[in-house]
Amino acid sequence: MIKFEIVHEDNKTGARAGIIHTAHGDIETPVFMPVGTRATVKAMTPESLKAIGTQIILSNTYHLYLRPGHDLIKDAGGLHKFMHWDRPILTDSGGFQIFSLSEMRKVTDEGVEFRSVIDGSTHFFTPEKVMEIEEAIGADIIMVLDEPVKYPAERKEAEIAVKRTYNWASRCKEAHKTDQALFGIVQGSTYEDLRKLSAELIVDIDFPGYAIGGLSVGEPYPIMYDILSYTVPILPRDKPRYMMGLGDPTNLIESVSYGIDMFDCVLPTRVARNGLAMTSVGKLNMRNAKYANDFSKLDPNHGCYTCNNFSRAYIRHLVVSGEILGAILLTWHNLAYLLDLMRRARQAILVDKFAEFKADYEVVHEDEFGAI
Amino acid sequence: MIKFEIVHEDNKTGARAGIIHTAHGDIETPVFMPVGTRATVKAMTPESLKAIGTQIILSNTYHLYLRPGHDLIKDAGGLHKFMHWDRPILTDSGGFQIFSLSEMRKVTDEGVEFRSVIDGSTHFFTPEKVMEIEEAIGADIIMVLDEPVKYPAERKEAEIAVKRTYNWASRCKEAHKTDQALFGIVQGSTYEDLRKLSAELIVDIDFPGYAIGGLSVGEPYPIMYDILSYTVPILPRDKPRYMMGLGDPTNLIESVSYGIDMFDCVLPTRVARNGLAMTSVGKLNMRNAKYANDFSKLDPNHGCYTCNNFSRAYIRHLVVSGEILGAILLTWHNLAYLLDLMRRARQAILVDKFAEFKADYEVVHEDEFGAI
Repeated sequence: MIKFEIVHEDNKTGARAGIIHTAHGDIETPVFMPVGTRATVKAMTPESLKAIGTQIILSNTYHLYLRPGHDLIKDAGGLHKFMHWDRPILTDSGGFQIFSLSEMRKVTDEGVEFRSVIDGSTHFFTPEKVMEIEEAIGADIIMVLDEPVKYPAERKEAEIAVKRTYNWASRCKEAHKTDQALFGIVQGSTYEDLRKLSAELIVDIDFPGYAIGGLSVGEPYPIMYDILSYTVPILPRDKPRYMMGLGDPTNLIESVSYGIDMFDCVLPTRVARNGLAMTSVGKLNMRNAKYANDFSKLDPNHGCYTCNNFSRAYIRHLVVSGEILGAILLTWHNLAYLLDLMRRARQAILVDKFAEFKADYEVVHEDEFGAI
Repeated sequence: MIKFEIVHEDNKTGARAGIIHTAHGDIETPVFMPVGTRATVKAMTPESLKAIGTQIILSNTYHLYLRPGHDLIKDAGGLHKFMHWDRPILTDSGGFQIFSLSEMRKVTDEGVEFRSVIDGSTHFFTPEKVMEIEEAIGADIIMVLDEPVKYPAERKEAEIAVKRTYNWASRCKEAHKTDQALFGIVQGSTYEDLRKLSAELIVDIDFPGYAIGGLSVGEPYPIMYDILSYTVPILPRDKPRYMMGLGDPTNLIESVSYGIDMFDCVLPTRVARNGLAMTSVGKLNMRNAKYANDFSKLDPNHGCYTCNNFSRAYIRHLVVSGEILGAILLTWHNLAYLLDLMRRARQAILVDKFAEFKADYEVVHEDEFGAI
């Protein structure tokens, strides 16, 4: 199991600095979790993830279930051993992927039938099945099966999803047998009463941590923050709070101010493979011809492996040439940048300077990656 | 300039152990040079190349000239600085790429006109132009512009190429102005008298090192070794001998026995990206379903980063899933395997056991990658 410790709460915002103690080590919060969809954070080795101070990674139950299969991972001795990662891991439940990737799906109160993105074969996930899969994979933190809805959603659809998510969460807790920490998930789309109802229902089940799902799915950011403003206070102070699927630097900082402790997103790694860098001077598209002769460092204010050793001109050459090293160097930097940002946010929280830190950051970086 | 030192000559074969002293460090021979076509050894960082003991890399003048351009590399402070590699570099002359990649080309005694593989634009390489480009790139060892011929080649064609290669080599030496070591190249296709003539002509010009070109282009291996048997003795004992474009492990070992000191090939890196591993137990195709549940190490007798930390099952999962880490781990291993093989060959030469080493190796590994 995990143990969550609040180290300090900011005196002007809802931000807090904490530690999640796990069997695979401590996680200092707020924390960004790089996503290793298929048991690998794309373009990174486990050692390069450690070099940038990665504390915990996320992997996707849906993808691992389809390939290589949870039984194989169990036979390998669990995901940590399979992928050579000895720090904490969180697995999602597959709910989001079923709804976003699988075109053919049929949801009932019993569970959800879907077709594999790999070969079109039919599969059926129930809360009990998902617990079996996540327990075989063996992450430190596992998520309940939930039902996200698209944005915008009809009220009736959102209401059904809230009730089903509650029902499935209860069944997950009932079926859950290991000492992995099982987190609940709040849904409710953009309806305040439904969000509050969902939060109360999920908290009532009593989990060691809570996620807010169904955000960052296309809704305007003011709506997203509005939802945080009335949902977070319902979540227990002494449990970690995890906002799913958020990766834009400004949005992370803003969400920390509402009291969110954990984040994950494919954004920093995905945009890296498209040639985009997250930097202290803003978003850089390294395909741009203006970097062809720019021999300065990628981010003038950053000290990662990429920034210390390679110029913008070289990185542009790699990206334009489609070289794997371009993806490696930009992924390395983007993740290091986000992890450093979270560490700086934590330091600011510890000395009650988070509001200033946030204001300074947002002057330069407002919503840079929001549209991606 | 470079200085070549013979440390020991094997007492039963033509193999020799040497050291090439360069301004960027020493190179122990026999040596395999990983290929960094576009100023990057695909899927490797400079630090991972160092971790496996890479002493020298090769980069391609043709590709660098087209993109990012030699002037840009010169502005960056040379290729070493541009790509963050402070050990020795060798650049080829582009001759081979012009003949193998550019469909439209027109060769005269003056030079060769060709079309860019990138945008179809027309370019003209002369020996003088190639020297200008290689000097701008700034490798430690640079190659003369030569004219390779395809296999099989008509005698008349091979004869013209030998004369032209001699003429161009003379002009390269005349035009060469820096203290980079300029190597000559022997051509002559499969004609013994032409090979001998080419070797004598090129040696007569007097270079600090000699390459044998136009081999491993489709000719049967007995013919290739036959050519080595009568060509190598014409090359000066006290100069490094470089056989271009060879990467099959068995062929490397066999060629070392004829007195070759240097090798390069894209084979270990290219096959890695296709899921093939070079191992002590033979060639492994990691896409094969039999590795799906194989939790043993990639090569039971190897100790690189990949073999020490990841199972065949995991690597197969990465390869089948098209994950970049699959390319990274197999490239790492294949290069480490070839470099280790060269180190073991050198150790065997130093104690006059190279013939036994070669015989033992060939029992298991005969011509595994020859057909690729």
